[in-house]
Amino acid sequence: MNKQDVKLVIVGSIGIDDIKTRTEDRKDLLGGSLPFSTAAASFFTNTGAVGVVGDDFPESFSKRWQSFGTDLDGVQHVTGSTFRWSGAYDDNMIERETLKTELGVFEDFKPILPVSYKKAPFVLLGNIQPELQMHVLRRAKGARFVALDTMNLWIEIAKPALKRVIKKVDLLTVNDGEARMLSGKYNMLDCAAELMKMGPSYVVIKRGEHGALLFSKRGVFIAPAFPVDNVVDPTGAGDSYAGAFMGYLAQRGRVSEKALREALLYASVIASFGVEGFSLDCFETLKFSQIERRMKKLLKMISV
Amino acid sequence: MNKQDVKLVIVGSIGIDDIKTRTEDRKDLLGGSLPFSTAAASFFTNTGAVGVVGDDFPESFSKRWQSFGTDLDGVQHVTGSTFRWSGAYDDNMIERETLKTELGVFEDFKPILPVSYKKAPFVLLGNIQPELQMHVLRRAKGARFVALDTMNLWIEIAKPALKRVIKKVDLLTVNDGEARMLSGKYNMLDCAAELMKMGPSYVVIKRGEHGALLFSKRGVFIAPAFPVDNVVDPTGAGDSYAGAFMGYLAQRGRVSEKALREALLYASVIASFGVEGFSLDCFETLKFSQIERRMKKLLKMISV
Repeated sequence: MNKQDVKLVIVGSIGIDDIKTRTEDRKDLLGGSLPFSTAAASFFTNTGAVGVVGDDFPESFSKRWQSFGTDLDGVQHVTGSTFRWSGAYDDNMIERETLKTELGVFEDFKPILPVSYKKAPFVLLGNIQPELQMHVLRRAKGARFVALDTMNLWIEIAKPALKRVIKKVDLLTVNDGEARMLSGKYNMLDCAAELMKMGPSYVVIKRGEHGALLFSKRGVFIAPAFPVDNVVDPTGAGDSYAGAFMGYLAQRGRVSEKALREALLYASVIASFGVEGFSLDCFETLKFSQIERRMKKLLKMISV
Repeated sequence: MNKQDVKLVIVGSIGIDDIKTRTEDRKDLLGGSLPFSTAAASFFTNTGAVGVVGDDFPESFSKRWQSFGTDLDGVQHVTGSTFRWSGAYDDNMIERETLKTELGVFEDFKPILPVSYKKAPFVLLGNIQPELQMHVLRRAKGARFVALDTMNLWIEIAKPALKRVIKKVDLLTVNDGEARMLSGKYNMLDCAAELMKMGPSYVVIKRGEHGALLFSKRGVFIAPAFPVDNVVDPTGAGDSYAGAFMGYLAQRGRVSEKALREALLYASVIASFGVEGFSLDCFETLKFSQIERRMKKLLKMISV
């Protein structure tokens, strides 16, 4: 792959996860938002990853990750321990409890954009500290369309900084709970109106198994989730969703209402494959023909 | 209206409600499942109501109800008190607490179908005791398409009787919690498969603000809810939804996959108007042109 061709840059966390579900107890899985989002995006476009790992990060993880075609030049290898997260899901795979969070090298993370990333027209500021999102945004000189994902933690402890970076992005994506926290409203239409006042032209409110809502000046798009009957591990579903969404947009090159809507459907499809296995397992064997087949099914499920 | 023309018969409860919301405290409202479902259905087809009221039921309620064109010949007036329900909603209009339930004359209700109802091709067995649903079904000799709605209470205390009547209907509609209770499964695809094994060719799983899922041999339809920014009172939304759905089908006369999908969209639209006021308030002034306008908006919100 030609490094000048990176079309989408994503910054996020890279972790090693231990995950318990009703039936399984898995240790040392490749996790964090970045592997999910970049692998999902790489089905559509040349994607560059910006993150950090410690010296305990297995070489096999990097190889596996690279097999998706993701550019890892933006992943710094530093002395110390990789970010570790451990969680347990309830029997229904909806609620989860965090058992352990060890920031490790992620605590002093300072993102560095390789030269070849600076011209990338699409940027996804994944869920990290808002100051670091701003840092990346300032360096991404070629950015034409920037999306930002965040989480309750930053809304609680870094709201002013978060609002400063939200002001500068084109699209904000949050889940329904975060939309409420950030906007101070309850009803989704009110939340979206409030969030758009903060700056972004587009707001995507993710509702897990219920899909998502896209808000723009053009109105609302009710994006369905692809119904999955065998959820093995929902970890990273929101990251895969955001990554696939931006990957598809970057591939299209132009952000139209139609492209945004299609991107959300592809995002549902990719996320639905992702949750059918642990870590990136299901992406590893996923062929584009399978993605297209599920996309057709999804289109049938929403057409009248 | 010609009595022979009743196309849809609905049986259900008729009540007088007291409802508390964050901002209002309203007493003595026309409520129960039947006024909502029949009024909603009456926008589309000639609908006959089967229910019971006591001698305290105000004449003004009957007049108001009849103003929708609903046939009330199947509403028995007996000595005693009308069913009374009282509830309070949380600030977000999602969770509610039942403060009072007085069955009154509903306790000894024995549905009677007027002769003019017996040829009706469409029947909605609203949420009442399963034995009474069966009683109505046996008498509805002209029924070609029968839908059944139920609730957690009957799943808990009358499951065998409920399953006997479910076996005989074409379509079962329940909410997601009830689908789980009744099927013993959690995932919606598993629930639907299990419920279809009980007899119905179609299952509609209602998910409130998240819309509904229609399951048939043909696959899944993901039906959106129409987003409402001003929910005044959600009481009866599920009943209006089921009533409008069956009303539209009865108007079409033929049950095809396309008609079912359109019916669910109209149902979302009607329910969205219903929750914008207390009791039947918003239906009272609702014109068909407004319904069509909102239907067009909804179609835009789901088209790619």
